[in-house]
Amino acid sequence: MGEQFVEYYYKTFDSNRADLAGLYGQDSMLTFEAAPCQGVANIVTKLQDLPFQRVEHQVTTLDAQPADTTTGAILVIVSGVLLVEEEKRPMSFAQTFQLKPREGSYYVFNDIFRLVYPAA
Amino acid sequence: MGEQFVEYYYKTFDSNRADLAGLYGQDSMLTFEAAPCQGVANIVTKLQDLPFQRVEHQVTTLDAQPADTTTGAILVIVSGVLLVEEEKRPMSFAQTFQLKPREGSYYVFNDIFRLVYPAA
Repeated sequence: MGEQFVEYYYKTFDSNRADLAGLYGQDSMLTFEAAPCQGVANIVTKLQDLPFQRVEHQVTTLDAQPADTTTGAILVIVSGVLLVEEEKRPMSFAQTFQLKPREGSYYVFNDIFRLVYPAA
Repeated sequence: MGEQFVEYYYKTFDSNRADLAGLYGQDSMLTFEAAPCQGVANIVTKLQDLPFQRVEHQVTTLDAQPADTTTGAILVIVSGVLLVEEEKRPMSFAQTFQLKPREGSYYVFNDIFRLVYPAA
């Protein structure tokens, strides 16, 4: 489940960010590099307004844990590499999602994205 | 809340890992560099068996979001730098916690730790 989601999420992010709307809901939260927003419309606007056109996510690690054994919610944690147009240097990132069940599938309730800079 | 927890967690980790036992419960999950374990005893054993004696966590970023508006659970996401004895090079890490309410306080239900290597 985690792998399928992550593959779909970054493929969609890297090809047509507007299509990510289907993965969020009215109560979804995104904190992108410390900037918070809430709700599918605000989140998709934020993602579309990011100052790059071409972007590629490469997943390095993927971890998943049950976030709530009663509801079936899942935590999915990704680390990887981000390649942005005109940047010669790839950047490391870490992203945490909580996926909650919705109508036989899942949607993103929590989404926290951070670039991770080299330690030294 | 997130900041207090993070400060206490790493201070305790870096001074006496056995004292972290009070922060976990029987249903807590830890995935440390892809190795999973569950329950306070297994988790504390895992943390104590890590192959270093002296360690220092420096927190670079801290994000928090409500993980469940009904129960009051919280997601706390940290990125930072790990300094381990005898290692000349600091390493970047990312760690995600889900804190759930327990007896007027919180405990760690989910804990996922990853080193994050430089992208290039």
